[in-house]
Amino acid sequence: MDPLATPAMVIDAKTVVRNAERLAAYAAQHELDIRPHTKTHKSRQLAALQMAAGAVGLTAAKVGEAEIMAEVADDILIAYPAIDPARTIRLVRLAAHATVRVAVDSREGAKLLGEAANRASATIGILVDLDVGMGRTGLQKPSDALKLAQFVDATSGLRLDGLFCYPGHIGGPADQQAAALQEVSDKLAHTLRLWSEHGLQARIVSGGSTPSAYQSHLIPEYTEIRPGTYLYNDMNTVRGDYCTLDDCAARIICTVVSTAVPGQVVIDAGSKTLTSDRCAPAPDSGHGYILEYPEARITRLSEEHGQVDIRACGSGPKIAERVTVVPNHICPCVNLHDAVWWRDEDGVLRELAIDARGRLV
Amino acid sequence: MDPLATPAMVIDAKTVVRNAERLAAYAAQHELDIRPHTKTHKSRQLAALQMAAGAVGLTAAKVGEAEIMAEVADDILIAYPAIDPARTIRLVRLAAHATVRVAVDSREGAKLLGEAANRASATIGILVDLDVGMGRTGLQKPSDALKLAQFVDATSGLRLDGLFCYPGHIGGPADQQAAALQEVSDKLAHTLRLWSEHGLQARIVSGGSTPSAYQSHLIPEYTEIRPGTYLYNDMNTVRGDYCTLDDCAARIICTVVSTAVPGQVVIDAGSKTLTSDRCAPAPDSGHGYILEYPEARITRLSEEHGQVDIRACGSGPKIAERVTVVPNHICPCVNLHDAVWWRDEDGVLRELAIDARGRLV
Repeated sequence: MDPLATPAMVIDAKTVVRNAERLAAYAAQHELDIRPHTKTHKSRQLAALQMAAGAVGLTAAKVGEAEIMAEVADDILIAYPAIDPARTIRLVRLAAHATVRVAVDSREGAKLLGEAANRASATIGILVDLDVGMGRTGLQKPSDALKLAQFVDATSGLRLDGLFCYPGHIGGPADQQAAALQEVSDKLAHTLRLWSEHGLQARIVSGGSTPSAYQSHLIPEYTEIRPGTYLYNDMNTVRGDYCTLDDCAARIICTVVSTAVPGQVVIDAGSKTLTSDRCAPAPDSGHGYILEYPEARITRLSEEHGQVDIRACGSGPKIAERVTVVPNHICPCVNLHDAVWWRDEDGVLRELAIDARGRLV
Repeated sequence: MDPLATPAMVIDAKTVVRNAERLAAYAAQHELDIRPHTKTHKSRQLAALQMAAGAVGLTAAKVGEAEIMAEVADDILIAYPAIDPARTIRLVRLAAHATVRVAVDSREGAKLLGEAANRASATIGILVDLDVGMGRTGLQKPSDALKLAQFVDATSGLRLDGLFCYPGHIGGPADQQAAALQEVSDKLAHTLRLWSEHGLQARIVSGGSTPSAYQSHLIPEYTEIRPGTYLYNDMNTVRGDYCTLDDCAARIICTVVSTAVPGQVVIDAGSKTLTSDRCAPAPDSGHGYILEYPEARITRLSEEHGQVDIRACGSGPKIAERVTVVPNHICPCVNLHDAVWWRDEDGVLRELAIDARGRLV
């Protein structure tokens, strides 16, 4: 990598370590395990840092990510219904040398995983996915979660590990989350009661997201939480009031390449660098935040151009000037970079590979 | 690559060839050169196909793309103000064995390119970038374009090649484009007249986009056009009425991984596969089009999940079923895939590398 070349993502080690330690302290206080979602960084090094900070295992979305992360931890949860043959064949291979757990919300999916496991003489741990309000995946009713748990418990090749949820619909200031979190807790408790009445145990109850991470103690059913973004943060978490700009570990250095249009400059970061993801808590705030020019607004992205409205700035950046952007959504943004810069605690930059970048399967 | 694994992009050779031949026939009829924008496919093989179809050279956005494309063609236009040192140093290196042209809209940028060229004893061709209404890059006034042309003409290491514009603001049905195209033509003509009055020539007048590609003859000043998307097409070009679904060469095979939420299925393609780009001519049409279920709507993308509303379908896809998605915007979508499938004219699939994927600099 050329240290002069932009756009370049720089990850600040001090901020990363502080973010990891803060979550570890919270989890320890509330006797919660942490199983960080590695989709955010897709990096072996960062996963190792999370394990060193006390994580019990790692979370991955895709099987390709899980394969990378199994080099760092021996307990991997695929927080994804990885039920099709292309995935199950790789998962059971992975299960030969790591504990592999999968969140599943269908009998058909559990059956396919069990068959694959049997063919490979492997065992896959299953977490039954319960929808707690996000409406994306997950069984709708506690009674359905009971039925699937019973099926899993009776299926050779599978081991019933527990219950899974993703409360991704919960956000906003902590005092506004309480009612929604109570609903999650109630639904989990109801389900666990049913399981218990039928002689089934959930050794793991896995939930959590970055916006609700520090409210996880309000869901006493949880045994572990799976935040991802907390390690880097972004404008979603800043504008959602979950952290400050100082907590944003990942920034993108850009160069101003055009100032020809009055009231505007163009930076060399468009949707192929920043993604088109809007800032969820503030959709009209632009495509990221420019640290040196807080009044500027990234109004429009083409693939390689970021158009920045500088009319509200006293004076905007000059041509060829460098500016620093905090992106809206760091996870898909990291996935656009083959490698980024790691700035260590002494300020020294070195290359950090995005090992699981582009692992779509 | 595993032929079973999804999400997987498949490029259909027959459709690609037909799209390339159609543009070549149009350009020949109107005596226009084609310099395709390779940002769409980022592939040596596809660039070679475009050269074989009669292109005079290739277009790239970033220097990293240009380096790849210079292996296929000896005349490369960087349609981007590549003016910072990290880029100029690589461009002048490239200019040692290829004709390198850069679109520039600032005197500072031209100066930096000239200095880099002189240090390397190279010559860089310059196209002066004129804003014809898009408001992204480009000089605002013909008189400014004259001044920059004069500066370039007088600067050692640079060669004034001509005039450049990007009419990316023009779209819609052909009969609604005429007035806007006339304005582009007038502004180019005005600028060229000024140049001519001052003894300057534009051997190249480069413009064009996919939406306006087949109206390029209405801008008689053009000597060449630079469409990119035309080769693959996508829902932007379908819903913009520039082509039909049959002209879409790139499709993404997905698997249904969850059907737990009533009225919805989840496919294994989210924003890390499809991007979050909305369909520009129909922003509420969803995140792509499912060929097998035209009534379905991809309402929401997470990073790896695509939530599909199937309430309007007679019956939706079953769990583990495969569906085929035509994405909204093919260019950033291709950039998310390390490799895709090329289905040749006999229907045989083989791997196609996305050689310039992730070339951000």
